[in-house]
Amino acid sequence: MISRIKEDLIRTSAMGRVSNRTVASYGQLDPKMGVSRPEGSSANKVLRDFTVQRMQTAGLSVRVDRVGNIFGRKDGSMNHEKAVMVGSHLDSVMNGGHLDGALGVFAGIEAVRRLHDEDFQNQRPIEVAAFTGEEGSAFVVGAMLGSAVLTGKMSADAALSTRNTLGRTLHEVLTENGYQGDFEYCSNDIDVFMELHIEQGPVLDTENISVGIVEHITGITWLKSIITGIGNHAGTTPMHLRQDALVAAADVVRFLNRRAQEMAKSKQSPVVGTTGHLSVYPNNMNVVPGMVELGFDIRSTSLESMQCLTDETISFLNGLKQEKGMDVHMESPDTQAPVKLSDEIVRTIEKAAVQAGIRFKRMASGAGHDTQNMASIARTGMIFVPSVMGISHSPMEWTEWDDIEKGVSVLTGALKYLSACN
Amino acid sequence: MISRIKEDLIRTSAMGRVSNRTVASYGQLDPKMGVSRPEGSSANKVLRDFTVQRMQTAGLSVRVDRVGNIFGRKDGSMNHEKAVMVGSHLDSVMNGGHLDGALGVFAGIEAVRRLHDEDFQNQRPIEVAAFTGEEGSAFVVGAMLGSAVLTGKMSADAALSTRNTLGRTLHEVLTENGYQGDFEYCSNDIDVFMELHIEQGPVLDTENISVGIVEHITGITWLKSIITGIGNHAGTTPMHLRQDALVAAADVVRFLNRRAQEMAKSKQSPVVGTTGHLSVYPNNMNVVPGMVELGFDIRSTSLESMQCLTDETISFLNGLKQEKGMDVHMESPDTQAPVKLSDEIVRTIEKAAVQAGIRFKRMASGAGHDTQNMASIARTGMIFVPSVMGISHSPMEWTEWDDIEKGVSVLTGALKYLSACN
Repeated sequence: MISRIKEDLIRTSAMGRVSNRTVASYGQLDPKMGVSRPEGSSANKVLRDFTVQRMQTAGLSVRVDRVGNIFGRKDGSMNHEKAVMVGSHLDSVMNGGHLDGALGVFAGIEAVRRLHDEDFQNQRPIEVAAFTGEEGSAFVVGAMLGSAVLTGKMSADAALSTRNTLGRTLHEVLTENGYQGDFEYCSNDIDVFMELHIEQGPVLDTENISVGIVEHITGITWLKSIITGIGNHAGTTPMHLRQDALVAAADVVRFLNRRAQEMAKSKQSPVVGTTGHLSVYPNNMNVVPGMVELGFDIRSTSLESMQCLTDETISFLNGLKQEKGMDVHMESPDTQAPVKLSDEIVRTIEKAAVQAGIRFKRMASGAGHDTQNMASIARTGMIFVPSVMGISHSPMEWTEWDDIEKGVSVLTGALKYLSACN
Repeated sequence: MISRIKEDLIRTSAMGRVSNRTVASYGQLDPKMGVSRPEGSSANKVLRDFTVQRMQTAGLSVRVDRVGNIFGRKDGSMNHEKAVMVGSHLDSVMNGGHLDGALGVFAGIEAVRRLHDEDFQNQRPIEVAAFTGEEGSAFVVGAMLGSAVLTGKMSADAALSTRNTLGRTLHEVLTENGYQGDFEYCSNDIDVFMELHIEQGPVLDTENISVGIVEHITGITWLKSIITGIGNHAGTTPMHLRQDALVAAADVVRFLNRRAQEMAKSKQSPVVGTTGHLSVYPNNMNVVPGMVELGFDIRSTSLESMQCLTDETISFLNGLKQEKGMDVHMESPDTQAPVKLSDEIVRTIEKAAVQAGIRFKRMASGAGHDTQNMASIARTGMIFVPSVMGISHSPMEWTEWDDIEKGVSVLTGALKYLSACN
């Protein structure tokens, strides 16, 4: 017998895919067929409709707020108490995987169904949330847009007037597909938020552990730089008379990688440093590169480590001016501080995992999630399940059904503990 | 009084420029205004017409061969002897400088005018040549096309049927602008070929020397490679689980640069090594680079040094497979061997420089020129004049008038020696 959540996920995996063949046909996905369901797409509407229908079948009463966030409520016996909310998002990147976001929403619905099967009576009300526009793949100005509005970080009016890559406002898009509601959630009414999500990294898969319990969401610093040397003829410019911007840039790439490795080894808090963007001008084989554009991504759960690596990278770039006569331009770094999740919720999730006999690992999230917005108004926790080979934002994204089952068990257990008033 | 060659060059510098303001207006060029006169352009025809007119005024009888090469002949008193040919090309790259090519043709015409002024009687016939399509900027399949046909490296028919970037054949283009002639030059009839050209590199300018005497034209090896690691999320992939293709590529960039510097210092023959092309995929700040495409340019006057540096680079790339588990793809290297110019001609040019009291330097040409084709059928020599800051193929290309004057003096002196039968 196919489990309910597996059925839900197989059905949703076909939404926004180039053909309607589903994962069921071959157990694994066709790597060429990613899902594309940005806000405003018809695939996104199909998935929203399916979600609402599944919520209702599970006995949840559905409300939609002004920016299209969907909330499915299971009343509690002490219904005036603050709610326990679980959920994630339904939108995807273009040509992405079918689990990023949708898994967390359907895991929430499945947990509620299990509580119902067991005749479990929740004291606090339970809410399953599906947030609008987490990926920022259509409305690029605001990733995690839905949770930003719920937590008061962005006004609903500002969010509704942002335009997608086709120039249409969120207001237009939501009105058209029937998801501009009038419900207004009071952020004071939420006690706990939990999100089950794929790890999107290789740690759990490499260590063969089914469940990750997230303690921190790492902070991110983005740093952009342009190194200008002197572009010149590759044949006629002797080595000692060159100011090769790419050779200088290669030094920075090496430096950031080496220092991030050293810091990741020596410090308790994980640090990563990446040169993800490097463009050479003019990029002709027979021209000594005159200019290189660089983009660095530095992350850590420790603000201090993150700033330390950023400062060292900036110093190194400045050194290129003095030592190599390069002209180095830098934009001021763009930093999002790390977020610590609730110790109590972490311990509660842990307790649920122990009770279910499931191996787990405390860890950090290297990617951003709606949870980091929710942390400002509620006690928050996250449950990770493994991404095969760490792959995400790709048609190759995959999590074994057994790991999904274990993640849902832990989520259900934690929900039982947390929906009781004590 | 403005000198004749200065007047010629100022007039030609306006041909193919975006506006008709000329160098004369401000002494230096407007850096935004390069010249564009690829074969087939109307600017190229205007320059050809002007050149023919100037040749005729200088007393030269003009003949045009099947691929549009223009030859202006000054008969000698021993007219049955093999000719001494001087010249270069008239075409330019797009948005290039006004001296690259044209200088050598007008220096040849000016030298003939000076012989006439001095009532110098040449024994051998003298030919001033303007070659078709040296830059390969329109008919990209064959750079140095005109001299390739003259020296039998390419058939006239093959050349005439090549198409430019607009899809038109050289035959069509030449017929249209009136430069498909029927003259056929017998390559046995040429004893000497000399080309005066801008250096296109910084050596003479840096050392403040007006004249370079070229001993070798360097060979070129082009090597292309693709390094494939594993593209992944920059936030969720720990440092020790990465296979970052850009970090590996940065090592290669550093290696080639360091080894080229070491070899350039320790060896007599100049060596240069450049990573001119590097493209990162997917090139997003928040993605660990999965693939990098590289293009290397390695040059030397010594075939051995060139092959040594190429082999070392290939070994280094192969090492990335073993040591870092990268997938490394390489195309087989594309090599053009170095060309040694004639010792006798080098010594004759040197004698002319000494006689004129002009400082000179023996050197190598890092760029390719028609001379390297001509070396297979005649004794060849090249005279370089400085490029300010080494800049060429750019609107900023510039040579001081005084240096041009010195270059023409040396060319004229050498022509006197070489046009005598001895």
